[in-house]
Amino acid sequence: MFRYLTSGESHGKRLTTIIDGMPSGLRISAADINTDLRRRQGGYGRGARMAIEKDVVEITSGIRHGVTLGSPIGLTVENRDWENWEGPMNSEAIAVKDKKQVTKPRPGHADLPGALKYDHRDVRNILERSSARETAARVAAGGVARRFLDEFGITVRSWVVGLGGVSAEVTGPPARLFKAAEASPLRCPDKIATEAMKRTIDLAKENGDSLGGIFEVSATGVPPGLGTHVQWDRKLNARIAMAIMSIQAIKGVEIGMGFDAARNPGSRVQDEIFYRAAKAGRKKVGGFWPETGGFYRKTNNAGGLEGGTTNGEPLVLRAAMKPIPTLYKPLRSVDIGTKKPYKASVERSDVCAVPAASIIGEAVVAIELADAFLLKFGGDSIREISRNYKGYLKQVRDF
Amino acid sequence: MFRYLTSGESHGKRLTTIIDGMPSGLRISAADINTDLRRRQGGYGRGARMAIEKDVVEITSGIRHGVTLGSPIGLTVENRDWENWEGPMNSEAIAVKDKKQVTKPRPGHADLPGALKYDHRDVRNILERSSARETAARVAAGGVARRFLDEFGITVRSWVVGLGGVSAEVTGPPARLFKAAEASPLRCPDKIATEAMKRTIDLAKENGDSLGGIFEVSATGVPPGLGTHVQWDRKLNARIAMAIMSIQAIKGVEIGMGFDAARNPGSRVQDEIFYRAAKAGRKKVGGFWPETGGFYRKTNNAGGLEGGTTNGEPLVLRAAMKPIPTLYKPLRSVDIGTKKPYKASVERSDVCAVPAASIIGEAVVAIELADAFLLKFGGDSIREISRNYKGYLKQVRDF
Amino acid sequence: MFRYLTSGESHGKRLTTIIDGMPSGLRISAADINTDLRRRQGGYGRGARMAIEKDVVEITSGIRHGVTLGSPIGLTVENRDWENWEGPMNSEAIAVKDKKQVTKPRPGHADLPGALKYDHRDVRNILERSSARETAARVAAGGVARRFLDEFGITVRSWVVGLGGVSAEVTGPPARLFKAAEASPLRCPDKIATEAMKRTIDLAKENGDSLGGIFEVSATGVPPGLGTHVQWDRKLNARIAMAIMSIQAIKGVEIGMGFDAARNPGSRVQDEIFYRAAKAGRKKVGGFWPETGGFYRKTNNAGGLEGGTTNGEPLVLRAAMKPIPTLYKPLRSVDIGTKKPYKASVERSDVCAVPAASIIGEAVVAIELADAFLLKFGGDSIREISRNYKGYLKQVRDF
Amino acid sequence: MFRYLTSGESHGKRLTTIIDGMPSGLRISAADINTDLRRRQGGYGRGARMAIEKDVVEITSGIRHGVTLGSPIGLTVENRDWENWEGPMNSEAIAVKDKKQVTKPRPGHADLPGALKYDHRDVRNILERSSARETAARVAAGGVARRFLDEFGITVRSWVVGLGGVSAEVTGPPARLFKAAEASPLRCPDKIATEAMKRTIDLAKENGDSLGGIFEVSATGVPPGLGTHVQWDRKLNARIAMAIMSIQAIKGVEIGMGFDAARNPGSRVQDEIFYRAAKAGRKKVGGFWPETGGFYRKTNNAGGLEGGTTNGEPLVLRAAMKPIPTLYKPLRSVDIGTKKPYKASVERSDVCAVPAASIIGEAVVAIELADAFLLKFGGDSIREISRNYKGYLKQVRDF
Repeated sequence: MFRYLTSGESHGKRLTTIIDGMPSGLRISAADINTDLRRRQGGYGRGARMAIEKDVVEITSGIRHGVTLGSPIGLTVENRDWENWEGPMNSEAIAVKDKKQVTKPRPGHADLPGALKYDHRDVRNILERSSARETAARVAAGGVARRFLDEFGITVRSWVVGLGGVSAEVTGPPARLFKAAEASPLRCPDKIATEAMKRTIDLAKENGDSLGGIFEVSATGVPPGLGTHVQWDRKLNARIAMAIMSIQAIKGVEIGMGFDAARNPGSRVQDEIFYRAAKAGRKKVGGFWPETGGFYRKTNNAGGLEGGTTNGEPLVLRAAMKPIPTLYKPLRSVDIGTKKPYKASVERSDVCAVPAASIIGEAVVAIELADAFLLKFGGDSIREISRNYKGYLKQVRDF
Repeated sequence: MFRYLTSGESHGKRLTTIIDGMPSGLRISAADINTDLRRRQGGYGRGARMAIEKDVVEITSGIRHGVTLGSPIGLTVENRDWENWEGPMNSEAIAVKDKKQVTKPRPGHADLPGALKYDHRDVRNILERSSARETAARVAAGGVARRFLDEFGITVRSWVVGLGGVSAEVTGPPARLFKAAEASPLRCPDKIATEAMKRTIDLAKENGDSLGGIFEVSATGVPPGLGTHVQWDRKLNARIAMAIMSIQAIKGVEIGMGFDAARNPGSRVQDEIFYRAAKAGRKKVGGFWPETGGFYRKTNNAGGLEGGTTNGEPLVLRAAMKPIPTLYKPLRSVDIGTKKPYKASVERSDVCAVPAASIIGEAVVAIELADAFLLKFGGDSIREISRNYKGYLKQVRDF
Repeated sequence: MFRYLTSGESHGKRLTTIIDGMPSGLRISAADINTDLRRRQGGYGRGARMAIEKDVVEITSGIRHGVTLGSPIGLTVENRDWENWEGPMNSEAIAVKDKKQVTKPRPGHADLPGALKYDHRDVRNILERSSARETAARVAAGGVARRFLDEFGITVRSWVVGLGGVSAEVTGPPARLFKAAEASPLRCPDKIATEAMKRTIDLAKENGDSLGGIFEVSATGVPPGLGTHVQWDRKLNARIAMAIMSIQAIKGVEIGMGFDAARNPGSRVQDEIFYRAAKAGRKKVGGFWPETGGFYRKTNNAGGLEGGTTNGEPLVLRAAMKPIPTLYKPLRSVDIGTKKPYKASVERSDVCAVPAASIIGEAVVAIELADAFLLKFGGDSIREISRNYKGYLKQVRDF
Repeated sequence: MFRYLTSGESHGKRLTTIIDGMPSGLRISAADINTDLRRRQGGYGRGARMAIEKDVVEITSGIRHGVTLGSPIGLTVENRDWENWEGPMNSEAIAVKDKKQVTKPRPGHADLPGALKYDHRDVRNILERSSARETAARVAAGGVARRFLDEFGITVRSWVVGLGGVSAEVTGPPARLFKAAEASPLRCPDKIATEAMKRTIDLAKENGDSLGGIFEVSATGVPPGLGTHVQWDRKLNARIAMAIMSIQAIKGVEIGMGFDAARNPGSRVQDEIFYRAAKAGRKKVGGFWPETGGFYRKTNNAGGLEGGTTNGEPLVLRAAMKPIPTLYKPLRSVDIGTKKPYKASVERSDVCAVPAASIIGEAVVAIELADAFLLKFGGDSIREISRNYKGYLKQVRDF
């Protein structure tokens, strides 16, 4: 079990994550997590705030001398700009000079539905929590999950495959795509597409507009048998769809061939099954030999998931992110106090956050995989889980 | 809270659903549920089994004299063909004549990952549960949820918008689209597309192939404020994505503009906010006046969900169903006993089950909405919930 | 994970249980479950209804040819008296001759709080579900859990240690106590106390009164390490307390020395720790050698649980059952329709149901242990779980 | 819904609580929470550490300008002695001078079962989390729940009713008992018993021994209808038993008459039902009139819970705390490294922590009541919940 909660407002004192269920004996340091926090803050087209944030995690519990204890892991990310927000965001009912309320809900944000639901007349009380800043707390949780998966040779990667109207040509082994993505300012492995994306962003910026895009998440080294077909809420495809859709601004998710599968005949969609005998001496990944023999596919249209269960092929999914709803170009809205129409615009903002979203996508997929892995293999220490996992891999090899 | 579990194998004695959390005082009869069970079994392109099934629900608990008690609702759907399966599927270790094992996993099904996970040498032990027949139990649960939502003027509808390569032209008010869909053998409101779809199915049948498609689910009368932005696993878009993706053969889900939102600039995606004063005497829907005034949108690209919360506009989502994986045309696979390759094919099967899937889509969306509704408005009887809901609608109107 | 829901009213058509999370490969038959159902119906001092019921389970899913599939297990217990209740308890809004409402809530039952909560004017709508008859569905679930635990040498037993004012002398090895309990009409291992209890029951019957009592549940063969100290809601003592307190009429639960621990100094309460080296060839229990070496205690005041975690000693707990609230002797109450006082009494009823409650206690403890076992050892088949468990036992032995 | 997780080790940097589900609009300040933190640290018989700790909460999210936002509430309690523990408890793999391992598990603690489960050779890796210090994080959560309940006139109080062998005479109205308890160094309302308890503690201290005791928790102003009888895991008595048993060192819990109910005949146990018409102008409590009319009891042997549901009478429960397991007087144990026996003792420790435990008892009961309240009445803002609650109270009054 990997369960977690986050708390924290965008301009609040600190973001907090509590992870419950991590086994003992996992080597991990703040640096492991900071890598992902830094990756989340990159990307061409981000606004000025990214420079202020420079997120760094603090580990407050659950890890001692670089190793997990088995107890809940507490992670925090401080707001480096807190001194400027201590008044407007103070938890106490202090006298605040600058107590001006936000009364203008922005279209495309949680502002208006949130204010109606929670009965707030100051929209700040909503937007502070609905902000994508919260995802830093999830990326921190994802860093722990990723470190855990790494012990078992499971690697979660992502890249951008579309941005605005630009589609990238993305094929090849995950490791190579990932390397190219990390070198691209837009996390896109296709260099030509990267250039086109940059220009599209520049143009959108000139127009005061914003852009969304599509990213792909890949997980390799995944054994068959994570998730299950037996009950609707334990299907791994369902849980992953939930995790992905919970990321701010995501409006679509597809696994494997996804929507294209709906447009093709069955004979082109299903992944035929082949078998090769196991061989000694195959490549060892992270202490295990996940793909040294047994059943396999030559295609992966299913994206590694059949019947809610992993089938041993890489997990592949794509998510659609809508454009950032905060624009320079004004959008019409209504003041919730006066009920008068006004035109909503902002002076500075990101134009596009798809590269950041892809990192968050990695995080939530890593979390769901860690959760499914722990449910399948049980165990309270890395040693115990490794033993259980090895036994299962042998069982699968000998099936 | 609306939680439920299902049990039952495809050729087992009976499918069972237990629903926990339905309030008391809801008028409901088996007929309400049977309507949806029958709708699930229709559609052009279905195989012979649909004729055998003719599902009928039996209510075994939780409802008395046509009204819910507040206690768990037990629903069952008998297997009408049980006498022919009493041997092969008997729960006891009886002597069975025809105990031949299924050793040939079908590509695209849970067969192989399931057999590896659960260590089964007889693939029947997997396929009996992974079968889409299980969805009858969910449609039964959905029937209860739908009846509940109906009390509050919330209506969940669906229609098919694509099948194989054929796309339909689907615009207009939900009620009209729904009426047209119900009249179409493929649940497609577009008559011309319906004809093209039928021909595509006929052609696929000739080729021994199968087809998938895309359906849309719409929910009207939904108040703003269901779901929340505050914690990742309580976002309604996330929960709905999970529910939809948990349906057999679904490979993608998108809300509102979905993947197209990723390809358009923000100025074309966000739904601007307008306001009109409430008027007395507007149209009453199901005892409530959900849309008589207040904030509204002229577009609905968000599909009714912003920041994980409903915004008062209709909920709109689409799901991609892959083609049925069981084909006449052989697919290559491997016998799990001998490890020899073989060619998998079947003598009879559905060619396309998209219309059925759309009914299941309605069911799971109704369930998630009922769950979110109960969480937001609390209450243990319809009378109490109605009172709470009316109070909230007034609060929103006066906001 | 072992999760389950039950549904069914006392005089409804059928009780239903769905268990989700049982692994595949467990040998089990209806007879295994019926044993416990029969045990629940015994005991000196039961009323006439026990003779009517004669509960028999029907397995409707999840088990094939005597072995679990890994899919949800559906269990039902029919109401053998259904023909007499088809009118009063019909799910449909049929014309019912005998539709008289129950308007007189009985003190000590859920009748009045339930009617207020669910807004029912007919108390039957509450009492049908709050009845202890529901526990037959839980005992059925417990039968599955017990069969599972049996594979790993874990045995859950119970006996009555007090009834009315009579206390029994209960010491000795669990197996012997259990044998004596099974031979006693009151499930009390102490023969002299059994006689005194019988007389107390006879006297209570003459007085038109009812009696409660105290039962003890013991689980042997439990490995150290089930449950955890790390998060409040995963502590096994907490989960067991919840399960026990959820049994109808239970008002207290204590683990190990329980309330007496509060009255004694620490030096008499804590169980000192000893060690003996493991020896080859020790007694094998259920395929495992749970107690062949390592750390042990000479006392078990903790009842096998320290810090929310099992410590390898037998689990021991006691529960207090209040007297059955339905008496011949009248209790004052108020008609909910007329608001007039009346005197509540019944013509026939059980005088004492403590022996039955002890069987239910076994069931819910078995369920919680199975759940904790599955969380700790993971695995989807008995073969996989056994392998994981053996590895852990060795790890503990070599600690 | 009121769900929460805690993290933090006893000598770690900081304890953290995240509460998810608190509605918006609740006025609350750190001072409200600090009151309970301070109360937890009091009591005759505590060791020196209490003086070091002086817990103070920091609110890091979810509350702005003294009012809840509806978003998750982050609470932390710093370790004031952190500078002395920064080496031994550092999260990073730094070079630590004083890295000596704890290899001597203390009987009665989680030390040994925890080390076996999590495969730790340094018992500090267990004891740091299993320590009762964690309860400060729960008391902080309880402070929020208490503030919430206060809005609806629900008050949770506690007092000590037994300590070592000394029993107190505790009868009278909750408010008076509470006042007397707060004035007692042992939180015992009975002055004579308080003196006897102090002497018992002094004697235990001289003997190098420790003591447990029994505390009672009372909740007044509770409406009928919280919890339910319909499903085992939603019964409020079960959930409260779980919460209480999850407190460190608790070995028993009983509701109302508890274990005594098992020893008395039904005619003395059940609470008869009476009725009085509602009157205008009765005493207003916290904005509501919970007890101005309707059904009531003259006795409260049920402790306010019948059939898993509150019945409108005060909730009353008792918990048994075992003596603190750390003694001056040596207990025999075994070094996990050498396997040699040794005698475990400590130089300084608390002798008795029952008064502190009673505060924790208040906290967890307040949390469960807040959770049940939110489930029953729904709502996302205090205004909405108040409206729903008032409607229900009227419904009950007019029943």
